[in-house]
Parts: sequence; C-alpha cells; structure tokens
Amino acid sequence: MTVPADAAIVTVGTELVRGLAVDTNTSEIARALAAVGIDVREAVSVADDADSLVAHLRRCTASYDLVVVTGGLGPTHDDVTREAAAAALGISMCRDRRIESGLAAVAARHSDPRAAEQVFVQADVLDGARVLDAVLGTAPGQVVPTTRGELVLLPGPPREMRPLLEAYLSGRPSGPAAPAVLHCAGVSESDLQMAAQDVLGGRSDIELTVLAAPGDVRVVLFDRGAGSTELAAVSASIAERIGESCYSTDGRSLAQVVLDRARVARVTVATAESCTGGLVAGALTEVPGSSAVYVGGAVTYSDDLKTTLLGVDPALLRTFGAVSDAVAMAMASGARDVTGAGLAVSVTGIAGPEGGTAGKPVGTVWFGVAGAEGVRAEMRRFGGDRHFVRERAVMTALDLLRRALRAG
Amino acid sequence: MTVPADAAIVTVGTELVRGLAVDTNTSEIARALAAVGIDVREAVSVADDADSLVAHLRRCTASYDLVVVTGGLGPTHDDVTREAAAAALGISMCRDRRIESGLAAVAARHSDPRAAEQVFVQADVLDGARVLDAVLGTAPGQVVPTTRGELVLLPGPPREMRPLLEAYLSGRPSGPAAPAVLHCAGVSESDLQMAAQDVLGGRSDIELTVLAAPGDVRVVLFDRGAGSTELAAVSASIAERIGESCYSTDGRSLAQVVLDRARVARVTVATAESCTGGLVAGALTEVPGSSAVYVGGAVTYSDDLKTTLLGVDPALLRTFGAVSDAVAMAMASGARDVTGAGLAVSVTGIAGPEGGTAGKPVGTVWFGVAGAEGVRAEMRRFGGDRHFVRERAVMTALDLLRRALRAG
Repeated sequence: MTVPADAAIVTVGTELVRGLAVDTNTSEIARALAAVGIDVREAVSVADDADSLVAHLRRCTASYDLVVVTGGLGPTHDDVTREAAAAALGISMCRDRRIESGLAAVAARHSDPRAAEQVFVQADVLDGARVLDAVLGTAPGQVVPTTRGELVLLPGPPREMRPLLEAYLSGRPSGPAAPAVLHCAGVSESDLQMAAQDVLGGRSDIELTVLAAPGDVRVVLFDRGAGSTELAAVSASIAERIGESCYSTDGRSLAQVVLDRARVARVTVATAESCTGGLVAGALTEVPGSSAVYVGGAVTYSDDLKTTLLGVDPALLRTFGAVSDAVAMAMASGARDVTGAGLAVSVTGIAGPEGGTAGKPVGTVWFGVAGAEGVRAEMRRFGGDRHFVRERAVMTALDLLRRALRAG
Repeated sequence: MTVPADAAIVTVGTELVRGLAVDTNTSEIARALAAVGIDVREAVSVADDADSLVAHLRRCTASYDLVVVTGGLGPTHDDVTREAAAAALGISMCRDRRIESGLAAVAARHSDPRAAEQVFVQADVLDGARVLDAVLGTAPGQVVPTTRGELVLLPGPPREMRPLLEAYLSGRPSGPAAPAVLHCAGVSESDLQMAAQDVLGGRSDIELTVLAAPGDVRVVLFDRGAGSTELAAVSASIAERIGESCYSTDGRSLAQVVLDRARVARVTVATAESCTGGLVAGALTEVPGSSAVYVGGAVTYSDDLKTTLLGVDPALLRTFGAVSDAVAMAMASGARDVTGAGLAVSVTGIAGPEGGTAGKPVGTVWFGVAGAEGVRAEMRRFGGDRHFVRERAVMTALDLLRRALRAG
C-alpha cells in the first residue's frame, strides 16, 4: 500500500465500555504510529459484540488509511474480532495449517477437551492476510489489505500486542520530528502556557499543548513543519525560560533525574516515609539500576516505629505531633544517620480521609531534607482525596531531592 | 426525555489520540452509567479538532440516546467542545451572565490580560441547555436536548468531571443489578473460566467475563434478567467452588482484605522489601485507616541496610546471596522483631533488567512470612519486564499475608 497518512485505533472488549478496565493499548499504539508519521484521528472502544464491531470496522476502514484493532483474537467464545473483520471486508477465512500445528502443544495442556478444541480457532486467517506470528501468548496478528490501506489485527494483552506492533512497523521511515516534551514540577499549568506561548509567538510550524497530571506538568511541542533542529532550539529556549522548574527534556521521569543527579554528585539517597507509605521508595526503585544510588529507608507508619527505626525523639512527637516540621526534620536526619546515605528525604502528613484537625487539615504534609549542609523542612497543603494527596506528596518529595542535588 | 437505554462516551483531547495521556474518564463514566442501567455501546477519543469532533457528535447523537462528552471545555484556544456541539446540533450559544460574574474573580487572578479575557468563554452556554455548575475548577457542564435524548458536556480533568457526572445522574432509578465481581489471586484465568461456566451451565440470564491483570484475576457476572438475588446466589456458588483463591466478592482490594483480616485477628503487620522497594507498603497504606493494623517496615535495597535495619546476618548474604530463601526468612523475622508486629512479609528478588544469573534469572523472587508460628519462604519466577515483575511480586506478597492471616 502507499504510505498511510491517517489511522484509527479500535480496541475491542466489553470490559472497556463497561468501565471494568482502562485501555492502555490506545496510548501505546498512538505513540508508535506518531513516531512513523501516522496521524491517529480517532480511537474507539467497542464491546465484544460482532454486529457493532462490524459496523465500526466498515466505517473506519472506509475513512482511514490504517485501522489497528486490538483484542478479541483469543480462543474464547467472546473473541469475535476475526469473524467481524471478515464480515466487514466481505472476505472469508481459512485455517492456517502451520499455525494450527504450532498450537497443538498448547491445546494438549488443557485437561478440558472443550478448551483444547477452542485453541485452534486462533489459526483462522483472513484470505489475503499476512500473519504476524505470536511472540508471547498464542494469538497471531493479521495484516489485511483494505481499499484505502490496511487493517491490522493485534491481540489485546499489552505484552502480546507490543512485539507484533513492533514487527508491523519495523522498517518504516520515521515521520516528522518526535514531539519535544518538557517535564516540569512546582509550577502552574497557566504559567507554563504563557511562558511557552511568549517564546513561540504566532508561529504555526510548532503546535503547543500543556498537559497537567498531579505534580507533573508537561509542555509538549509538535513538529508541524519546523523540523527537528528548529524544534529542539525552541524547546531549549522554553526550557531556559522556565528554569529549574523544568526537570527533564529527554523523557526522563522525576525519579530518574533524582537518581542521575545523585550519581553525578556521588551522593547516596535514603527515604523516610509516613503518609506516602513507601511510594517515594517505590518510585525511585522503579528505575532500573537505582540500587547504585538508592540505599533504602524506612516506612514508619506508627509513631513508635519513627522512634525505633529512625531515632525520632518521643518528646518531639508528643510536643509537636507526627505531622510537624520538627518530626519531618528528625525523620530525615534519622534516615540519613541510620542508612549512612548522603541525602535523605522524609514525608509525614495527613492523607485523609480521617485524621485532619482545624490546625492541620487533611492534605497537610511536612517534608524534611537532610544532607551534608544540614536539615530543613517544607510544608505543602494539597487538595483532593487520599490517593491524590499521596501522589502529590510523592512528586514533591522527589522534587525536593532533585533541587537539593542541584544545590549540592 | 425518556429513560435512555444506550450511550456513547466521547473523550476530547489531542493528547489522547497521540498517546500522551491515558484516558481514565471513559472507565469511570461507563461504570456510573451501567449502575443506572444505561448500556455504553462505544467510547471514542478524538483530537482537539473542531471538524472531526462535529462529525463524531453528529454520528453519536444520531445513534445513541445519551452522548457524554468530556474535555475541551476549558478557557484555552484548543478547547473546542462548546462550539463543536453547537455546530453539530445546529444551535447557537449565548454568554450566561450568572456564570460570567462567577468567573470574574478567577479572571482577576491572571496578571496577563489575554488569559483573563479567555476565562469568560467558559460562560458560553448552548441554547436550551441546562447548566451543571462547576464544583471544582471553573468549567461548568451542560446538558443539551437532542432528537434522541441528551448530549452532556463535562470538563476533562477527572476531579472536575466527577461531581458534575454525579449531579447529572443523581435521582435516577438504578438499572439491572450491579455486576457481581469475584476477585481472585494465585489461580489461572482459564481455570476460573471453566469453574464459572460449570456453575452457570447454559443459562443466558447471567453473562460471564473473566478479566486478567497482573496477580489479580476477576470473574465478572452481569445481570441479564436474573435479578440481584439470583445473581448473588450464583456468585456465591462460584466463589465457593473457587475456594481460598477468591479473596473478595465485595469489591475490596487484596490490600483491604489483608488489613481487614489482620484487624479481626488482632494482628499487626510489617513489611521488609528489597526488589519491590516500598510498593507493598504503598499498597497497604493506600487503604484509609491502614494505620490501625500496618505499623511500617523497611526498604532495604542495599545489602548493608538488610543487616543494619533488619539484623540479617552478613554470613547469610555472603553464603546464599540476597535473593535466597535464607535471606527472605531473615528479612521477615527481622522486620517482625524490629517493629514488634505480629506478622511480617519480606520480598527479595531480581526485577531486572540487570542482575540475573543462570541459577537466578530475572524474575526470580523470594518471599518470607514470619508470624507467631514461625517463618517460611516461598519462591516465584515471574516473566515480563521490571515493572511487571514488581507488580506481580507486590500482589504475591499481599496474597501470602492474606493466606497467613486465614490460617492464623
């Protein structure tokens, strides 16, 4: 086919339209298609219902060069994608002997003969389709020619989908420059928008979007004809204008930046967590190779453990309460002492829904940072529910570590 | 309007079709609509592009009783939903004076006069629309009559969308019985499918779906005429057949079940984590009120800290390595001793991508459980990448705590 310019993504699964699962395939496929210059125009989720799927596949294959479908390729009765695709395109299917023999071992593992027989439906291939052999799991992908371009059927589980999508896209020349993304923390969405717009002026060859998530605001610049060199230059100008609040322009997460800065500064890092209950540690250790810098820490949910594990003076807890600058600093210092790390951050706050008072309402969080230069405390008051308060507190703790490592 | 029977959800945002954000509104709205008996037939994400949005709104308002749109209601230039809805339905808009005056304080906060002026576009209301006043944020929702039913415009940020969706749906009679969901751990998807199908037989008044996520497999039963009493009875039969692998039938998470069982047994809980780096603690403390049972623990990422914080004998680390049954048991016992908790779980493994050996490949994880009856170790070998291994390890650690509390 000619190079496809636009695409639709169709995700199939009753769980998606009933709210029992969140679709992550769309996001992943959209990024992969954007990287080769294909513009995704719509992403639609539909139930495991053959009639409805046939209608959407007809509409999408008639409207877009490329239609990528995930889900409904498994062996069970509600896997209807193969049949729906055949019906939508008016073509038939036949059982592929090679795939069938590959599935024999899988079928043999089932003690139930019904389940064993069902396995083989995954060998049904649409006429004229190119098969993308399964890498994980058992369902192969299929690439079917359409009047406008191609229809690509991929399995639903992200781990099975991913290698087949890569196989399908491999060898394609890349499209426009990848979007430039500036990750920022500790700054408002509207301030970022204004800063970026002032640098951009009225130019139309770069498109601006500002995206906000808890504690992580992103400025995204799309190439609309500017080219990669110009996009990089503009991105650098905006980053300079934003200053230290922009923590990465190369896709690194806040945790990655903390670990990288610590590695360069030859400083080890520790954590002492109360209300975030291990999530700051969890974010740092999500990064491969974090063990070179991050030594560990304590989750001191009870007051007693703050004393036992971190040596917080019980008098401080009695006098100021667990959520206080004094205890935050004692936790950070204690974590630094007990772990021998160069830099430690502490978090102690009221995530809710219970535990708030007039003076310390839900959302009040104290942070401590202990390093070679001493120890200090900062307070934030976050809105939102327990989950949101914890999420914001994790990002703030990481950002305090990052800023401390800049200064250090 | 008459009671709507079916619906479409339209989520608006260029970030959604470019893979820069994962849409969670669809899932949340679909669950809320299902609870009042409205069947979501499709969920489509489209870019911030007025023409494309107009086309989808025309198609959806012509096909479904209810169309719920989120996003594109803010004050910026790429917020096109109001205008697209007006164009799709062929009606005009006027500026609502009451909303406008409410926005004056917000506009005054902007130092930039352009941004201040833009704020007021959020007061533009479609002719004949009912306004849903903003609870958080500044963008109100709108409910617009269509020939088949209603078009509902809601803001995109989940925290702003949620109260307006609730306001829109409040007072509606509930629909069919809410789906029965059996959460299971430590059992395969296909075994669950067979067990559920055997109990269901060929009955068509209950619809079965099995959903799998890392370490958490769900059997979902939809009411298709059976009614709530019958649905509950069938759900109970399936739960009984599954046995201890079914950990909740009332929506509680695995962490909640652990905490509830510990509360009943009057046992406090502690954690000692290496490769999961705080995520087991993070999952337990996500539950409101967890401080009554969960005391805390250690994140001992380095070998030294395993000794310093948990008292693991350095000879064990030298002889067997950090990823071993001996160290897993020593970590669990150490965590129990140092925290004074009744039950402690430990996790030590190789999450990858580095660190694997022939004998202990990436994905090898040892768990220790220490309680009043002594200490024991279990090993699992997980496939997949670092994130997946850690996710599975967290669920396994929680499940081991749960099973230990059943026995205790």
